[in-house]
Amino acid sequence: MSHTPQDTPQLWSGRFTEPVSERVKRYTASIGFDYRLAEFDIQGSLAHAAMLAHQRIIGAGDLAAIQRGMTEILAEIHAGQFQWSLDLEDVHLNIEKALTAKIGDAGKRLHTGRSRNDQVATDIRLYLRHNIDGLLGLIRQAQSALLDVAETNADVVMPGFTHLQVAQPVSFGHHLMAYFEMFKRDAERLADCRKRVNRLPLGAAALAGTSYPIDRAMVARELGFDGVCENSLDAVSDRDFAIEFSACASLIMTHLSRLSEELILWMNPRFGFIDLADRFCTGSSIMPQKKNPDVPELIRGKTGRVNGHLVALLTLMKGQPLAYNKDNQEDKEPLFDTVDTLIDTLAIVAEMLPGIRVKPEAMRAAALQGFATATDLADYLVKKGLPFRDAHEAVALAVRHAEAKGRDLAELSLAELRQFSPLVEADIYAVLSLEGSMNSRNHIGGTAPAQVRAAIARGRGALTGA
Amino acid sequence: MSHTPQDTPQLWSGRFTEPVSERVKRYTASIGFDYRLAEFDIQGSLAHAAMLAHQRIIGAGDLAAIQRGMTEILAEIHAGQFQWSLDLEDVHLNIEKALTAKIGDAGKRLHTGRSRNDQVATDIRLYLRHNIDGLLGLIRQAQSALLDVAETNADVVMPGFTHLQVAQPVSFGHHLMAYFEMFKRDAERLADCRKRVNRLPLGAAALAGTSYPIDRAMVARELGFDGVCENSLDAVSDRDFAIEFSACASLIMTHLSRLSEELILWMNPRFGFIDLADRFCTGSSIMPQKKNPDVPELIRGKTGRVNGHLVALLTLMKGQPLAYNKDNQEDKEPLFDTVDTLIDTLAIVAEMLPGIRVKPEAMRAAALQGFATATDLADYLVKKGLPFRDAHEAVALAVRHAEAKGRDLAELSLAELRQFSPLVEADIYAVLSLEGSMNSRNHIGGTAPAQVRAAIARGRGALTGA
Amino acid sequence: MSHTPQDTPQLWSGRFTEPVSERVKRYTASIGFDYRLAEFDIQGSLAHAAMLAHQRIIGAGDLAAIQRGMTEILAEIHAGQFQWSLDLEDVHLNIEKALTAKIGDAGKRLHTGRSRNDQVATDIRLYLRHNIDGLLGLIRQAQSALLDVAETNADVVMPGFTHLQVAQPVSFGHHLMAYFEMFKRDAERLADCRKRVNRLPLGAAALAGTSYPIDRAMVARELGFDGVCENSLDAVSDRDFAIEFSACASLIMTHLSRLSEELILWMNPRFGFIDLADRFCTGSSIMPQKKNPDVPELIRGKTGRVNGHLVALLTLMKGQPLAYNKDNQEDKEPLFDTVDTLIDTLAIVAEMLPGIRVKPEAMRAAALQGFATATDLADYLVKKGLPFRDAHEAVALAVRHAEAKGRDLAELSLAELRQFSPLVEADIYAVLSLEGSMNSRNHIGGTAPAQVRAAIARGRGALTGA
Amino acid sequence: MSHTPQDTPQLWSGRFTEPVSERVKRYTASIGFDYRLAEFDIQGSLAHAAMLAHQRIIGAGDLAAIQRGMTEILAEIHAGQFQWSLDLEDVHLNIEKALTAKIGDAGKRLHTGRSRNDQVATDIRLYLRHNIDGLLGLIRQAQSALLDVAETNADVVMPGFTHLQVAQPVSFGHHLMAYFEMFKRDAERLADCRKRVNRLPLGAAALAGTSYPIDRAMVARELGFDGVCENSLDAVSDRDFAIEFSACASLIMTHLSRLSEELILWMNPRFGFIDLADRFCTGSSIMPQKKNPDVPELIRGKTGRVNGHLVALLTLMKGQPLAYNKDNQEDKEPLFDTVDTLIDTLAIVAEMLPGIRVKPEAMRAAALQGFATATDLADYLVKKGLPFRDAHEAVALAVRHAEAKGRDLAELSLAELRQFSPLVEADIYAVLSLEGSMNSRNHIGGTAPAQVRAAIARGRGALTGA
Repeated sequence: MSHTPQDTPQLWSGRFTEPVSERVKRYTASIGFDYRLAEFDIQGSLAHAAMLAHQRIIGAGDLAAIQRGMTEILAEIHAGQFQWSLDLEDVHLNIEKALTAKIGDAGKRLHTGRSRNDQVATDIRLYLRHNIDGLLGLIRQAQSALLDVAETNADVVMPGFTHLQVAQPVSFGHHLMAYFEMFKRDAERLADCRKRVNRLPLGAAALAGTSYPIDRAMVARELGFDGVCENSLDAVSDRDFAIEFSACASLIMTHLSRLSEELILWMNPRFGFIDLADRFCTGSSIMPQKKNPDVPELIRGKTGRVNGHLVALLTLMKGQPLAYNKDNQEDKEPLFDTVDTLIDTLAIVAEMLPGIRVKPEAMRAAALQGFATATDLADYLVKKGLPFRDAHEAVALAVRHAEAKGRDLAELSLAELRQFSPLVEADIYAVLSLEGSMNSRNHIGGTAPAQVRAAIARGRGALTGA
Repeated sequence: MSHTPQDTPQLWSGRFTEPVSERVKRYTASIGFDYRLAEFDIQGSLAHAAMLAHQRIIGAGDLAAIQRGMTEILAEIHAGQFQWSLDLEDVHLNIEKALTAKIGDAGKRLHTGRSRNDQVATDIRLYLRHNIDGLLGLIRQAQSALLDVAETNADVVMPGFTHLQVAQPVSFGHHLMAYFEMFKRDAERLADCRKRVNRLPLGAAALAGTSYPIDRAMVARELGFDGVCENSLDAVSDRDFAIEFSACASLIMTHLSRLSEELILWMNPRFGFIDLADRFCTGSSIMPQKKNPDVPELIRGKTGRVNGHLVALLTLMKGQPLAYNKDNQEDKEPLFDTVDTLIDTLAIVAEMLPGIRVKPEAMRAAALQGFATATDLADYLVKKGLPFRDAHEAVALAVRHAEAKGRDLAELSLAELRQFSPLVEADIYAVLSLEGSMNSRNHIGGTAPAQVRAAIARGRGALTGA
Repeated sequence: MSHTPQDTPQLWSGRFTEPVSERVKRYTASIGFDYRLAEFDIQGSLAHAAMLAHQRIIGAGDLAAIQRGMTEILAEIHAGQFQWSLDLEDVHLNIEKALTAKIGDAGKRLHTGRSRNDQVATDIRLYLRHNIDGLLGLIRQAQSALLDVAETNADVVMPGFTHLQVAQPVSFGHHLMAYFEMFKRDAERLADCRKRVNRLPLGAAALAGTSYPIDRAMVARELGFDGVCENSLDAVSDRDFAIEFSACASLIMTHLSRLSEELILWMNPRFGFIDLADRFCTGSSIMPQKKNPDVPELIRGKTGRVNGHLVALLTLMKGQPLAYNKDNQEDKEPLFDTVDTLIDTLAIVAEMLPGIRVKPEAMRAAALQGFATATDLADYLVKKGLPFRDAHEAVALAVRHAEAKGRDLAELSLAELRQFSPLVEADIYAVLSLEGSMNSRNHIGGTAPAQVRAAIARGRGALTGA
Repeated sequence: MSHTPQDTPQLWSGRFTEPVSERVKRYTASIGFDYRLAEFDIQGSLAHAAMLAHQRIIGAGDLAAIQRGMTEILAEIHAGQFQWSLDLEDVHLNIEKALTAKIGDAGKRLHTGRSRNDQVATDIRLYLRHNIDGLLGLIRQAQSALLDVAETNADVVMPGFTHLQVAQPVSFGHHLMAYFEMFKRDAERLADCRKRVNRLPLGAAALAGTSYPIDRAMVARELGFDGVCENSLDAVSDRDFAIEFSACASLIMTHLSRLSEELILWMNPRFGFIDLADRFCTGSSIMPQKKNPDVPELIRGKTGRVNGHLVALLTLMKGQPLAYNKDNQEDKEPLFDTVDTLIDTLAIVAEMLPGIRVKPEAMRAAALQGFATATDLADYLVKKGLPFRDAHEAVALAVRHAEAKGRDLAELSLAELRQFSPLVEADIYAVLSLEGSMNSRNHIGGTAPAQVRAAIARGRGALTGA
């Protein structure tokens, strides 16, 4: 990359001395960021023009000219040759002006029966729908990666933690499948959100609709919308879809931050449960021995950014009277940055997961450290007839004894174990093993490897639509 | 109300001097707020016990005893006679202990094959499902009230604002229907959220499932869940449903804050568009003439509270490793307060809307003040063949002229109007009237009263399920 | 502006198909934004090098070479000729590498006894201190503008609102001076924050300090810091200063959003209290008559952005273990954007305020509309001996009577007024006039024009340091 | 505790069926929470009455009656016998009404020259000042506890982490002192905030001041305020102090959440660095062996709550026009809960810290695991003349070699070490030891135990004001 920042000459202090008119122009213009909507703006304009022609509001010749002009403009944009102008405020006027320069009066007729208020709302919805679809694909990639790693590790025992204390042995594959479930909900939520994104605002014009004989249903069909926004005031002022998407995004990042927290923990040498591929880590400028899990740390950190954008959008809309207010222009940057962050993060996670190197011995050693099978002893006693609460107490005493001896429960003799309950017999040792414990939780949702494999199979089916 | 706050003797400074053990107990116990889950906790326990008996994990006699005991306990709670104890930490142990006191060993067997981790997750989901259903009803009530007021006022002209400047005349009924649309999306979102709430965590036990031969599907059926949480680690640590609900709640409050902002504005004497019924307003302790729109102001203010709870929940979950951590106990108070705030606010709004007294003359006077039909003049010229951008410029000049004369466009003579375009003819005056403008926006989503009535009819159909 | 966005060819969808290694590099590198720290990075390096030489850790020749090289680099950056490389990750390595390319081994010695962890913390603090100083100047400019407009309008009567209902007449100058007070607190807070920003982290190295015989106090003096961070672990991991600054920023924006809300309201034709200069407003793409207060609307909207950044930073730091984690890299973008937003917004406000055109007649008309002097009548009765609560009730009855008659209190006859209390005499009419009411609130903080002028004089004294 | 929740009979569903008038009353009344301001309300009223008497606005007999009445009321409140009434809306009217019931007309004169708007602002400031003072004491207690534990452990070596990877050996005492620094800043911030809290709003009356000849300076002196709010509109509408306090609180919780994260990590058996006293932990309802660090987990969780309140308050004030709006009533609950949470949490932390049992062997074992002295080897080479960047590379190779051999750097032979640089000599082994490394970072802020002790001495001096 050769990066020459625009504000280099004055660097950070330039803003203090800028002339007013430039500052106001820069402050109120949106072209610095909404140029990203260009392709969607053109899509929307083409559909609008086609409808105007169909309704005889403009002529067939006008339509043809508009189509030709827009094709040229899109090509220029793709080639990086389009000249965006701050004086033209936003993506809409930049493109309309370029169109008129190319095709004359037909260009001036394009804006008939619409306003920038409904135009921009349409653009953002098209942008967001496009990105939701991309994100759904990335979530599936991440899920698919999880299924693979989970399958390979269905039989690997690790300590399941609650309160970061050893609780019970679990399958590492089972642990990973918890994230599969989270992503499944994330995809469901995005799909639900998409339904509400996919409604056409165009036709609302400035706020009240238009006096031209427009056909909104035709435009909606043309653009692949499920329907039209049924109230014009709502259509131009509504930013629910951005907020709902942002909330979905915050949940996705929350899940990824939890996974990242665990990866960082597991990479710590005291755990040593896994290793990440080198390209997701970096070294230190001062400590030559370091291999730092930079990518998961950044993911964890970027959660703040996405949550912050959600707050920005909610604050933005709070207490706004109808209909469109300029405040709404502030919806775009948080939304764009949220989408970019999600795309990058999900793509990296999907790539990072298959490269995890698992260290089963370290996991097993850790699982043996905290009386992970104490519950199994209690359940054993209950099955022999002791009420659960009494069994719980007997086991607590046995644990205290074992702890004092510096041994695990499975390392106590039968005689020792029987001190705490005469119900204990020789078959207890199968129960107290890590695998015995893990295999016994054999119901839907449980950690028994058989169940994990079944869950993986269900997951594969869902992903492939089988 | 006779209110004797618990901490009165020491008031606010009591906390500084409290003994440690009491403080720790109070700090870690949840009974101070989770007692509200009692009925749901009992529902869940009864379904769990029925399944245990069906699977022969406990005896039929145990089940009968548990059912009898729980019936008594529920009656005591309803009668306000149940003694909650801080020493028993939470609603679960309080009830279990009371049960055991009543029925002995059978009570101790109830907790077989479950843990408080999956139990509390089940309770909250039952609580939230119950309240989502209640909230959906309240939203429908608010929508229904909107439909009534909108219908009465479908023909009332008001100034539609953008940027709080007069833009175009709109129907007051149309304006209100914008909120109907918002509530429609709110209801959709809650219904989508409900699908993810309505999954059974029970059976996940502490984090890994249980070694008892449980039947989770049976419990799910018994409790009306759509299915089971398919991963035990996820089941006990997931709080997505609370966050998703909270995000829905923030959007509902955002909509209500916008409506409130408008009601406050319309109540201002410069506007004078409406009056609220007295019982939603209060006076002043010092200014005898005041009638303050307290209720809408509070609604606007309470938006902050609900947004804050969303942030609290997101912050809570960020970076938490699996599985259950005590942090999660902090999910309840924000959730409860969010639910309470929504119930109160929606119920009050549904009651307040029918009592709005509309002042059509003030609305009309305001609509006549800002050249609200300028767009109509432009559209008129376009229909006569002028490109839209040129028409826009001609009208801008006409507005400048009228402004200088201190008159509205409709008050200019034909000769004057023709100075700006020879295309203007006598039929222009119909176009320039408020009603002419409003009636001309006659397409789905437009402000023409005919369209407003159609939208109301669609709305009624949707509410009654017709 | 000729703007050619980097991602144009692929536009928004490029990110979906990027190769992994590039994505990881872009994801983890900070050069895309931290290049803005360049001048501060160089300042810090020069001070560090001077200290190393003074302590004989590097030679005098090394220092001279470093100084020469850095001068060249800074000139290249200012000229926009410096080539930033994504492969070199961040501003620190980019500059160090360029330095070594210019001066050889001396460049490699610069990093002796420091780490990027303490280096970046130093850079950000220098950046923030610089900007706090700039912002303090801008706040003073805004305050100075307020003083001027307040002085001109000290005698102008407007309706003071509570609950957006007419409460009591106030001086428009007095109203503006409320914002002077807010900015005064904002400046105080920034100055307090600056104390905590202005501490030197350098010397903390990676996290534990360094084994070289460094002199941190010398570096602190050289860079104008008030002292050193006294714990190395804290020095590299602390981001309090960014959060505290962000909270100050949110309050500044909160104040500006309130002012903007009022400007927007006052621009509404129903109020018509003021007009903004045209260059702070824009027109409509569809409605030729519109003059929209875009700048205040955007200011109100940008409050969300700044609040969101505060949440981002708080979320970022929550639950981070010591010492430096890569998460911290996420501190910069929110901070930079917050600073940029504040600079732009304050500069625009300082420029916009003098251009406000005040319309005293509209304000007076509004003040006459809501029984604004009812409290004065009550106070009059109290001064004649009636207990306040009884006076309050008598006036409430008088207001009801006047309202029914469609007149203001001052328009009732003496006989009518005496119906409500025999204490009323002819001197009441002076009390009931807007000016009488306003002038009577004549104590520090009160709205009497004499007090407003005194407040303005105090304000001028404070700004000029007199 | 015997807890009988008020809403028990109807439990959670009661709110759905409540009659409107009760709901509105409950919705708008604040007595449910602002009763906590009672003592401060009375303080403020007494100072106000004293001033009224001094200024001859009320008589000496009235003052005496008010003082007598208030003394009785305060005693009733302390005894828990005062009857709060929802019908009287708030703490102010409840007390005023009780006063008038006791002393007649004198009670009705108390409200002369003030309004609830300036009254409540005064109450909250008194409340907050009181609690800031209490919190400053609690912070000092926590700092004092840190000093003690740090002193005992100044020589204990632990692995310093960056990126949760072993970086360099640090003193455990040094690590704890990082939190001392954070608390130091927290106390500074609260003290700065207190300056802005401690200003008197009383005298602003409803919004414009009062026509009585009041003496605000006298009231300020009486109540211990540093000065008066100098603009009446600002005085009644300002809630900056609550937001600024909330931001301070969020930072305190952020620091405590970081400490808690570390305590939880250190309690994990893989770390085993410390043990917490039993009373700060709890067991499991199902796993008999568990000892969970509940208190730190809850502290971490409660950070969300406090951050959420900050967002609530910022959202509340965004875009509010002057002067007082009912929205502001929503400031109290977030503020009260923030204060309560801070008091409880700081008090518990101050108590929990001395009970930490440190396990130095586990810390040492961990420090030996990750080549923690690699930087020391690099620095050694630099001191022998190698440029830092070259030394960094040589050490990276040595680490790779050691890692392949499964040994620490200190366990390599001299010959092996010399393979990577001929500059290595026998004195290297002192450098490579944990203590050698730690002791060598011997400058202010560094981890050398001598520096840690110096920092502790400075800290003690600061706490005792020496």
